[in-house]
Amino acid sequence: MPAVPARTPDTTLNEDRQALLDRLLAVRAESLARAARLTPEDQCVQSMPDASPTKWHLAHTSWFFEAVVLAPHQPGYRAFDERFAHLFNSYYESLGPRHPRPQRGLLTRPGHAEVLRFRAHVDEALARFAQEAGAQAWAAAEPLLALGLQHEQQHQELMYTDILHAFWCNPLLPAVLPAGPVASLAAAPAPLRWLDHAGGVAAIGHEGSGFAFDNERPRHPVMLAPHAIADRLVSCGEYAAFVADGGYERASLWLSDGWAAVQQGGWRHPAYWIAPGDPRAPADHWQVFGLHGVRPLDPGEPVMQLSFYEAMAYAEWAGARLPTEAEWEHACAGPGFRQAASHAWQWTRSAYEPYPGFRPWAGAVGEYNGKFMVGQQVLRGASLATPAGHARPTYRNFFPPAARWQFSGLRLAKDLAC
Amino acid sequence: MPAVPARTPDTTLNEDRQALLDRLLAVRAESLARAARLTPEDQCVQSMPDASPTKWHLAHTSWFFEAVVLAPHQPGYRAFDERFAHLFNSYYESLGPRHPRPQRGLLTRPGHAEVLRFRAHVDEALARFAQEAGAQAWAAAEPLLALGLQHEQQHQELMYTDILHAFWCNPLLPAVLPAGPVASLAAAPAPLRWLDHAGGVAAIGHEGSGFAFDNERPRHPVMLAPHAIADRLVSCGEYAAFVADGGYERASLWLSDGWAAVQQGGWRHPAYWIAPGDPRAPADHWQVFGLHGVRPLDPGEPVMQLSFYEAMAYAEWAGARLPTEAEWEHACAGPGFRQAASHAWQWTRSAYEPYPGFRPWAGAVGEYNGKFMVGQQVLRGASLATPAGHARPTYRNFFPPAARWQFSGLRLAKDLAC
Amino acid sequence: MPAVPARTPDTTLNEDRQALLDRLLAVRAESLARAARLTPEDQCVQSMPDASPTKWHLAHTSWFFEAVVLAPHQPGYRAFDERFAHLFNSYYESLGPRHPRPQRGLLTRPGHAEVLRFRAHVDEALARFAQEAGAQAWAAAEPLLALGLQHEQQHQELMYTDILHAFWCNPLLPAVLPAGPVASLAAAPAPLRWLDHAGGVAAIGHEGSGFAFDNERPRHPVMLAPHAIADRLVSCGEYAAFVADGGYERASLWLSDGWAAVQQGGWRHPAYWIAPGDPRAPADHWQVFGLHGVRPLDPGEPVMQLSFYEAMAYAEWAGARLPTEAEWEHACAGPGFRQAASHAWQWTRSAYEPYPGFRPWAGAVGEYNGKFMVGQQVLRGASLATPAGHARPTYRNFFPPAARWQFSGLRLAKDLAC
Amino acid sequence: MPAVPARTPDTTLNEDRQALLDRLLAVRAESLARAARLTPEDQCVQSMPDASPTKWHLAHTSWFFEAVVLAPHQPGYRAFDERFAHLFNSYYESLGPRHPRPQRGLLTRPGHAEVLRFRAHVDEALARFAQEAGAQAWAAAEPLLALGLQHEQQHQELMYTDILHAFWCNPLLPAVLPAGPVASLAAAPAPLRWLDHAGGVAAIGHEGSGFAFDNERPRHPVMLAPHAIADRLVSCGEYAAFVADGGYERASLWLSDGWAAVQQGGWRHPAYWIAPGDPRAPADHWQVFGLHGVRPLDPGEPVMQLSFYEAMAYAEWAGARLPTEAEWEHACAGPGFRQAASHAWQWTRSAYEPYPGFRPWAGAVGEYNGKFMVGQQVLRGASLATPAGHARPTYRNFFPPAARWQFSGLRLAKDLAC
Repeated sequence: MPAVPARTPDTTLNEDRQALLDRLLAVRAESLARAARLTPEDQCVQSMPDASPTKWHLAHTSWFFEAVVLAPHQPGYRAFDERFAHLFNSYYESLGPRHPRPQRGLLTRPGHAEVLRFRAHVDEALARFAQEAGAQAWAAAEPLLALGLQHEQQHQELMYTDILHAFWCNPLLPAVLPAGPVASLAAAPAPLRWLDHAGGVAAIGHEGSGFAFDNERPRHPVMLAPHAIADRLVSCGEYAAFVADGGYERASLWLSDGWAAVQQGGWRHPAYWIAPGDPRAPADHWQVFGLHGVRPLDPGEPVMQLSFYEAMAYAEWAGARLPTEAEWEHACAGPGFRQAASHAWQWTRSAYEPYPGFRPWAGAVGEYNGKFMVGQQVLRGASLATPAGHARPTYRNFFPPAARWQFSGLRLAKDLAC
Repeated sequence: MPAVPARTPDTTLNEDRQALLDRLLAVRAESLARAARLTPEDQCVQSMPDASPTKWHLAHTSWFFEAVVLAPHQPGYRAFDERFAHLFNSYYESLGPRHPRPQRGLLTRPGHAEVLRFRAHVDEALARFAQEAGAQAWAAAEPLLALGLQHEQQHQELMYTDILHAFWCNPLLPAVLPAGPVASLAAAPAPLRWLDHAGGVAAIGHEGSGFAFDNERPRHPVMLAPHAIADRLVSCGEYAAFVADGGYERASLWLSDGWAAVQQGGWRHPAYWIAPGDPRAPADHWQVFGLHGVRPLDPGEPVMQLSFYEAMAYAEWAGARLPTEAEWEHACAGPGFRQAASHAWQWTRSAYEPYPGFRPWAGAVGEYNGKFMVGQQVLRGASLATPAGHARPTYRNFFPPAARWQFSGLRLAKDLAC
Repeated sequence: MPAVPARTPDTTLNEDRQALLDRLLAVRAESLARAARLTPEDQCVQSMPDASPTKWHLAHTSWFFEAVVLAPHQPGYRAFDERFAHLFNSYYESLGPRHPRPQRGLLTRPGHAEVLRFRAHVDEALARFAQEAGAQAWAAAEPLLALGLQHEQQHQELMYTDILHAFWCNPLLPAVLPAGPVASLAAAPAPLRWLDHAGGVAAIGHEGSGFAFDNERPRHPVMLAPHAIADRLVSCGEYAAFVADGGYERASLWLSDGWAAVQQGGWRHPAYWIAPGDPRAPADHWQVFGLHGVRPLDPGEPVMQLSFYEAMAYAEWAGARLPTEAEWEHACAGPGFRQAASHAWQWTRSAYEPYPGFRPWAGAVGEYNGKFMVGQQVLRGASLATPAGHARPTYRNFFPPAARWQFSGLRLAKDLAC
Repeated sequence: MPAVPARTPDTTLNEDRQALLDRLLAVRAESLARAARLTPEDQCVQSMPDASPTKWHLAHTSWFFEAVVLAPHQPGYRAFDERFAHLFNSYYESLGPRHPRPQRGLLTRPGHAEVLRFRAHVDEALARFAQEAGAQAWAAAEPLLALGLQHEQQHQELMYTDILHAFWCNPLLPAVLPAGPVASLAAAPAPLRWLDHAGGVAAIGHEGSGFAFDNERPRHPVMLAPHAIADRLVSCGEYAAFVADGGYERASLWLSDGWAAVQQGGWRHPAYWIAPGDPRAPADHWQVFGLHGVRPLDPGEPVMQLSFYEAMAYAEWAGARLPTEAEWEHACAGPGFRQAASHAWQWTRSAYEPYPGFRPWAGAVGEYNGKFMVGQQVLRGASLATPAGHARPTYRNFFPPAARWQFSGLRLAKDLAC
């Protein structure tokens, strides 16, 4: 594998720089690890405009370091290929025009091997920068390096998410990962317990010096209504009861837009569920397609690849509702709260809006979060596809309400009388 | 005009029933008054799927009384025409299938005259019901009559909104109302004053016995951040400065979805502004199309027919933001707050979500508000097209962020340091 | 009715001019007669981009005389309204920009009454022109007047065709004409007879001094293969057997594009057939919607509102083929050829192409026919909606192969051994 | 390379079988040769629904032999993978359901290597079949083998055509073939000479025992009008004069559908022409993208990648017309006719229709040609991408009139007075 350059054993590198560089290169290596089982063909494909090729993720995360850290802060930095800025910019208007998103899958060139060389070039440049940067340049670049690291971790989750969708579109239904049993998912769910809260003022949002995205700040007081929140996620078995009860045929359970999506998309069950008798994977029972391929539906496993609309309809059917993001964040630190970040992102009833006093970062990275604050719902927690160390209780993920190719499930909540 | 039946001088009708019936028939008459200057052809046209023909509004509001009040509560009620339930149901899934929304303009039959007969039939039946209903039936129907009245008022605003869009699509640019000067709009705007608020807990939402929609309840505490809110709306003159400053060409001012709308729609200014040199209405200055036809842009008049995206971009350009709906509602009752409900609905930064403890009404009218609570932004106040007596400080109007054919403008707000 | 001006009893008008003017005004009157049973609302509606409102037809045919005859040839002619050129030009690029075709239904103004005044204005101007024009102007204008007459007759057929489609889109299924029995359609079909032809050189196309469109010229020799052609059209009863035999479910009978249309459009039978049990017109037998409203399927009546794809599939199923336009034209003059122009236009196997040596007319009317010579199929004959005196054996009608809202049916043909 | 199996030196194989097998395996090898310079990523991509991936072409042509020859005629034949029938059927309804055409590019699996194994499997089976088949099986299969050979040659042309389009969509503009000069294209065009024909009866179509597609038969008499046909194709230099003269801005030169395509597609020149100043390949002169990459426009080279609409507009501008297919076929055998099959397919004025007496082949291969006989125009000749030995004077290629990614150009014709 044309891999990450070995760490330079330079005794002059101070400890903080070394620690950040170590983390950086470890994260960069994880991206390659996630792609390792995929062929160059697999890594090139784009199954829909909202998804991106693996190769594009690998290149885009490298371009991000080039555009945000190396070009502005490393004197004399030579871009690996000047044309890549056009190819691998995602949505940064201030960084120039870019290749149209729906055509990312057409980029058979640069080839897989060249993208690996691009990554190595950037890795080496980052290592050199850690060694050579003056104090001022380092101070300016350090938060951007930290951001680049988090950014790459976000794309690691998308690498799994997007290739899973691509393989779902292939009638052969290939598996992304080996088919071995995953014990942590196989256990039947414990009985659901409700965690009560009497309501009142609470504080949410990030504060302190650790990394957080701009959209998690500032920490601020919110008013919670009296409510209860479930201690775990809704399971496949519970969701199957909703399906069996005609959940997808009863307009009264759905938001208006959700019902329109059900009709137009012919939705009858979660996106990657395979009904008995499906010719692609013949069986007499329900099956679920996931990273490990097609497996029998596990009633205890949290349901995933759910849209916000489906989560809302299920909650309505269950006589409950979704939690707000404030309820979720407040509860997740408390006792008894399970499956916070282990299985699936959790849709909340909260639209994705700025916190009071929100300020986007300065410069190009100001486009990171704020400009998407309309038409999306917040998800909290993390998923089995989220890289280790990436999640935080204050983390605000967001997707449009119809998105159903993410590792997204739900946790119930309900009102309590005042 | 086959108009509203004269009030029956029945001495037995008790005062409350009489008062409600009087209001009801007055509101019903206002619908006809709004249509009076339109030809049958004008009243039949549908200019886009989101808009409805005048005639359809006239019939739909009548069907609403039939379906929700008369058929369930008036024994032996005979529908004017059984087939109208299919034609004039808007979106009530529980009340059966319905004519597709984008095809409402194809309904040349029933003709204009027959729809007037339909209205008279319903008016008479309502008057009879007020006289004949037993105490129990009246008690059950009274809130639905009140709702029907409010419902019809909402459609009165849409009648103006929708025909204005239809006339905008006609190169002849006809006027909905006579072209006389409207003094209240012609004054130059007073200097903008900021109304400060130190933040803290406040209560919003409706309580008490007066009419309110289900989405305005329950009244509940919210946490306000320290902020200031403008005492008046943004004016056409101010907005023209934004246009002249390249507001529609600078991606950095826009939400991502907003910028996409600008590009795809070729937006260069508000929807009904007419640039100098436009062949449809030649002039060497900006003009604005409104209910009174094409008129010179009045710098003091509040800007309207603005999408949420445009409101957000303007606020960004002005170094401010939009108020939340809680900030708006709290401020509107305070001193110095002007133009609350006189000119244009005001976009807020708040997505349209349920209040804590929200419960939709029981029965078919439960589809009225709750099922639209995703993907829309709240507007507060009222507009020059809103019928008298319809607005309330707790009123929550809502539209998708791209909607730009409403009487919708904006009021600025900004953060204050804690 | 602001109708056609009474013929001026001017003894100085020479006979030829008088005869043409008489014909012209009679044809103009027929347009109004076809619209007479329609309300102003009916006349304003446009049910799809390919169809036009009745009012638009009435205005466009008048604009045609203005633009092609009066403005160029009548000195000092004052247009009724200068803006109408933009509104009522159909597709003449050389005559300036025009209102978008899909938005013709939005033109509630000019209203119905004003369009009638427009027609009267043009009628009067034509009468005056016939009286006043000098010999040279008359010579130049005469062929254009003749063309305008034919043009208006073509739109007369479209008036019926288009309003029938609009009424078909209305769940009330109104009738264009009174519901009385039409004896000529009720008779059971005679047994089909084949008219044989041994093949060889024949001449087709128009020659001589009578009126013909440019696309019918020049008369030229063609080579016919040995073949037989049916003496009458395929009947509804015969077509019903094709439907019952699974004709719409067997890909092997269809052209590739036709099969795609069947799948995408959900075609199961001809466009205006109503299956037993349809809630719009409950019955236990097949019905057909036509100008006289909903009537039981008449097995002897020729099948209509058929696309080329359906005609081709039927012919394949019947072990036959469609005739070429040359075969049709040659046969129609011969003995035994029935239903040539009485019921429905007849799809041919011939694509709409120029005859050898074809030259479009000079000037704006050169856009009349030639620019449509790709992607369309020729239909021959005429229909029950064609105005009297409009058809000719050499007439070449044309429509895209998916069009199924015309009065279009089919006649079979087959190869004979050499 | 997992290549074509070496010919089995079996002395018992009779000469005819051996000759056919030799040709077959040589053609199969040519497919691999055309793909040899492409990476697995390149071979997987699909740039639009009308184009197919290289890998898909390689697999589909192999499936064709499996489905049409081996499965029906080779007893005990084992398909390489049963699932491939679904993946690699193109449009044969009678051979079962198939993967949707627009999603061929999503098939990263089976991978490139496996498709090569599939090809080897089929090659071996064909060789074995040639050796083992009984006389009767061979007699039945022989024409299908010949068809499979021709079919694969057709896909060889598409391999070049489709990958060229994919590379055109890549801002890096990679070259399919090495960039060396191609002398035969560089020469300036000889002065155009007109080849006259006095008109009269001629015979076109294929007869005799050599291979021809069903659509080339039967040979039959046609009537030619007096005309002249150009001795060579229109060159890039000539076409550039049309572009410079505003050819793409003058509606009067275009068919109506063509003008709509110009407007909607923003056409300003042939598809693969690169205007001076284009950032993808900066230069101060026109350039053309082709199999050898970006090269300066060669004025003498025939213009290609032209739609029928563009060919028609050019001919109109040049005061000429396109030849009919009969004129082309008759002239191509005569003296002085150049560039018949060396550079580009040549659009004709003839819609793609059946010859008199046309009969599709029996069985599944009956879907080969006949079902596309509507909405397409005939092209004659062959192109520089056509494999050697594939073209014939009677060959009828066909594409929709808007197609502009083929190696398609034009030759002029004109009417002569009778």
